[in-house]
Amino acid sequence: MVKQLIECVPNFSEGRSPDVIEAIVKPFRERKGCALLDYRADKDHNRLVVSLVGAPGPIQEALLEASKVAISHIDMEHHQGGHPRVGAVDVIPFVPLRNITMEECVEVARRFGRRYYEETGVPVYFYEDAALRPERKGLEVIRKGQYEVLKVEITDPGRHPDVGAPKLHPSAGATVIGARKALVAFNVNLGTDDVKVAKEIAKTVRSSSGGLCHVKGIGLALESRGLVQVSMNIVNYERNALYRVLELIRMEARKWGVPVIETEVYGMIPATALLDSASYYMQIAGLDPNQVIELRLLEMLKDDEA
Amino acid sequence: MVKQLIECVPNFSEGRSPDVIEAIVKPFRERKGCALLDYRADKDHNRLVVSLVGAPGPIQEALLEASKVAISHIDMEHHQGGHPRVGAVDVIPFVPLRNITMEECVEVARRFGRRYYEETGVPVYFYEDAALRPERKGLEVIRKGQYEVLKVEITDPGRHPDVGAPKLHPSAGATVIGARKALVAFNVNLGTDDVKVAKEIAKTVRSSSGGLCHVKGIGLALESRGLVQVSMNIVNYERNALYRVLELIRMEARKWGVPVIETEVYGMIPATALLDSASYYMQIAGLDPNQVIELRLLEMLKDDEA
Repeated sequence: MVKQLIECVPNFSEGRSPDVIEAIVKPFRERKGCALLDYRADKDHNRLVVSLVGAPGPIQEALLEASKVAISHIDMEHHQGGHPRVGAVDVIPFVPLRNITMEECVEVARRFGRRYYEETGVPVYFYEDAALRPERKGLEVIRKGQYEVLKVEITDPGRHPDVGAPKLHPSAGATVIGARKALVAFNVNLGTDDVKVAKEIAKTVRSSSGGLCHVKGIGLALESRGLVQVSMNIVNYERNALYRVLELIRMEARKWGVPVIETEVYGMIPATALLDSASYYMQIAGLDPNQVIELRLLEMLKDDEA
Repeated sequence: MVKQLIECVPNFSEGRSPDVIEAIVKPFRERKGCALLDYRADKDHNRLVVSLVGAPGPIQEALLEASKVAISHIDMEHHQGGHPRVGAVDVIPFVPLRNITMEECVEVARRFGRRYYEETGVPVYFYEDAALRPERKGLEVIRKGQYEVLKVEITDPGRHPDVGAPKLHPSAGATVIGARKALVAFNVNLGTDDVKVAKEIAKTVRSSSGGLCHVKGIGLALESRGLVQVSMNIVNYERNALYRVLELIRMEARKWGVPVIETEVYGMIPATALLDSASYYMQIAGLDPNQVIELRLLEMLKDDEA
């Protein structure tokens, strides 16, 4: 049988305690069949973002184990951080990579969500392609008002979880689980400590405020660095190329006399997202991903395997 | 046994006749074990550049077959083009990719060179890592004065071929064969028809005139397009990043009030050469090739194979 590969990018609400971070990450390191590609904790976000690639089975086993560690250590009643969140294990997206369809990933997400509730008691919302209610496709709808508001509103039928009783876990809140296409987490750091600048610029680029259709974004302060950040998910990097997003932000920032200090690619990124931007800036006519040696080698190895 | 993979980038002196180009390329398409990654013919260069990846054995068989086609169709006595050349089959470099050392590639090149002369009667010069005389490391030394001058000077002991009698093949000239590291063929097209501009700018960036140490380059006219081109080989793209070369050229071009119209990556390019430039222009802090999904997948497949 051909080996199925998925990517999984669980987000945990802990970005400050190295001990807790390492304890959460440990099952991903140790589980055979689950490759820990990347993990990044951000103190200002107070959040841990993990990137995994592997077969659906081992990834789910490691996820359950890591989630139990996170749930036992993180108390949402005392959690503070710049990034929106509703739970200790905040979001778990499954992304199809090879030999697996989106429909199969949706099935994985929904089955995992039910098992996750059974084993942890944390209620689950399904989002993106795994959403059971159309309005829950958008993560921001589920996370509206964050942990603090959801704690009260979860009793409204419109905000009931998809799995579990309409009541947050007392310390771990809720978890959002879904299936989606690969996205790029892209942050632009600006040389000011005025968070208003980041918030205003985020509004001009994100789809919810009328900007680019496939950009989600918020403005937040990076207090430890004295900077502000436009923190984004580019959910379709083919339609909204990274260079276009960046140059739009740069252009808006001029209005405030604020420079782009640096940018960050958070977690994993598909090669073409970077090639498109390299092509733009370098004016490379007709660059074809097939010209990139490693991408051709990957295709050749896939052929061998099939 | 682990599969050896090399890249090979033969250059043929025919960029105008589609029939001849297709006839030359045919053996590369059809030979099992030899993958034709890319081929590009340029009318102004009057040159065909082919990119192959595969095992050393099949690649050499296909090369011999294609070379015989080229030799039977191309007459150097009547060849004209913007790019320096000494033969119908002008240059054949072997590049180590996987599970093969540079020393082994040198051995492949030298053995192939001897067989090539035996079967075609075209004298051979060895260059780069396969050079037998230190001064022949540089392709430009071997090609000095091109076909027309070499035809006369080949009788000088200093210009004798490494394989074969000191006499050019009457229609196919000579062939330069070698082993080298992966390079990037990078061209910058400028918005003027004054070839002097391209020649002057080429001088400022190439190592032979005191520019960047790992850039080889010439200025030439793209007559069919009314443009001029700085045509380069970046022989060490880690030390002389593409963005640096491009921005240096852009800066020099300002002196002449000439814009960069577009650039070209000719043939294959290693992923990191593009990632470095994307990082520069997008100010991406600490981008790691391991964050690129496809590059990680390639590593994982390699591990599986080992």
